[in-house]
Amino acid sequence: MTAIGIIATLRVQPGKEEAFEGVFAELAAAVNANEAGNSFYKLFRTEAAGVYKVMECYDNEAAVEAHRASEHFRSLGAKLGPCLAGAPEIEKLTGA
Amino acid sequence: MTAIGIIATLRVQPGKEEAFEGVFAELAAAVNANEAGNSFYKLFRTEAAGVYKVMECYDNEAAVEAHRASEHFRSLGAKLGPCLAGAPEIEKLTGA
Repeated sequence: MTAIGIIATLRVQPGKEEAFEGVFAELAAAVNANEAGNSFYKLFRTEAAGVYKVMECYDNEAAVEAHRASEHFRSLGAKLGPCLAGAPEIEKLTGA
Repeated sequence: MTAIGIIATLRVQPGKEEAFEGVFAELAAAVNANEAGNSFYKLFRTEAAGVYKVMECYDNEAAVEAHRASEHFRSLGAKLGPCLAGAPEIEKLTGA
């Protein structure tokens, strides 16, 4: 079993930071409550205004797929989209 | 209490990957066993040969300082150093 790490960089439109953080908190709670294959899912602010990074860790590829297919990711992701200034940048990593 | 996230990028010399990963596994075990203020500490391989990223999360700044001052970080860090191809690149993040 090889863990999968993801670092997602999200750029939020000026003035939408609070709305973004609020919806993301709902998403993180849903991930923690419903995804047995996820071991870490947390939003961080970077030093650049409006730029956030999400650190994520999954037990395996199936757990990543389950995350992306989940109702909470689809419904809350749809609410996050209008806050963003562009497409998320996703870096995928492999547990060592 | 504001969580602190760290993404550390480490470049390992060719041929030293296995030694590096072995020492890092000892370090991660020591962090998990001894640092109550750390909630995540995991090594990942990136897509670039010899380039690793560590995802770290601490409860607060004091927990980061306790990590850096710990005997396990100092002693095992000294063993990791000779495997590296340059200084680690550290990105510090703030929990949102």
